[in-house]
Amino acid sequence: MALKSLEDLLVHFARDMYYAEKQILKTLPKMARKADSKDLRDAFEHHREETETHVETLEKVLEQLGQKPRGVTCEAIEGILAEGKEIMEEASDADTRDAGMIAAAQAVEHYEITRYGTMIAWAKQLKKNDIAKMLQTSLDQEYAADDKLTKLATKVLNKEAVS
Amino acid sequence: MALKSLEDLLVHFARDMYYAEKQILKTLPKMARKADSKDLRDAFEHHREETETHVETLEKVLEQLGQKPRGVTCEAIEGILAEGKEIMEEASDADTRDAGMIAAAQAVEHYEITRYGTMIAWAKQLKKNDIAKMLQTSLDQEYAADDKLTKLATKVLNKEAVS
Repeated sequence: MALKSLEDLLVHFARDMYYAEKQILKTLPKMARKADSKDLRDAFEHHREETETHVETLEKVLEQLGQKPRGVTCEAIEGILAEGKEIMEEASDADTRDAGMIAAAQAVEHYEITRYGTMIAWAKQLKKNDIAKMLQTSLDQEYAADDKLTKLATKVLNKEAVS
Repeated sequence: MALKSLEDLLVHFARDMYYAEKQILKTLPKMARKADSKDLRDAFEHHREETETHVETLEKVLEQLGQKPRGVTCEAIEGILAEGKEIMEEASDADTRDAGMIAAAQAVEHYEITRYGTMIAWAKQLKKNDIAKMLQTSLDQEYAADDKLTKLATKVLNKEAVS
């Protein structure tokens, strides 16, 4: 990988996110199965559907950049997901596991939020407004997913407090 | 590691962040040395100083939780920093490297923002308001650092556009 320009960076990040979104797509059903709260399960399932469209968006972005839809290993998402897996396995009661999984999912959302935010700024700078617009739709959905998780966290924590 | 309660999760995250902040402390001077923009260099140096206080805060948090100041390997930050290092090494011109380093630093900030946000919610739930307050100060500084990086990104990108 040689990064000689902002466009090279944008291609690299699109590949990084393409890999990341595909990993997330594999992980969300596992998280949904482990969720105790029905609302949390539904949230993971809903976000899995959104993630499918994010993968397709990145394929279109790479195509518009004249690139094949090919990912590069995203070490950041590997690390974030590994931590989430560890919490899922080590939590011994349902409420603790739900609280831990929400935190893990929010770390994923925040990684995506920062990456899409950066890519949108770069795409605009490069006058690639179609790309910026497509990525904005994904970014808006990541923000909404993060907000929903914050609300669910409050619900799970309050349940824990009264149980 | 057995996670049986919200307090166990809070201890685990405090250790995770203790490890993460110490890694960040080691990385920021390297990023400052590589930065071409003086403003960016100053931002990294200023944030290094803040990061020192975040490490101390986490020591106090762990102490209040009855724990020794000991970290646990944070795979998420390892992955995020590894990606940043790769960008620093592969970028062949100064402006591209600055743009890439800003993106890398923002991924770090977002990880910290989500983790501190979660820990504050858990601390409040556990009625550990002193801990919540201490972590809020760190969180506010992470948000400010992220905002500053967004502004610097615009400056670096505009410089690239006119050069």
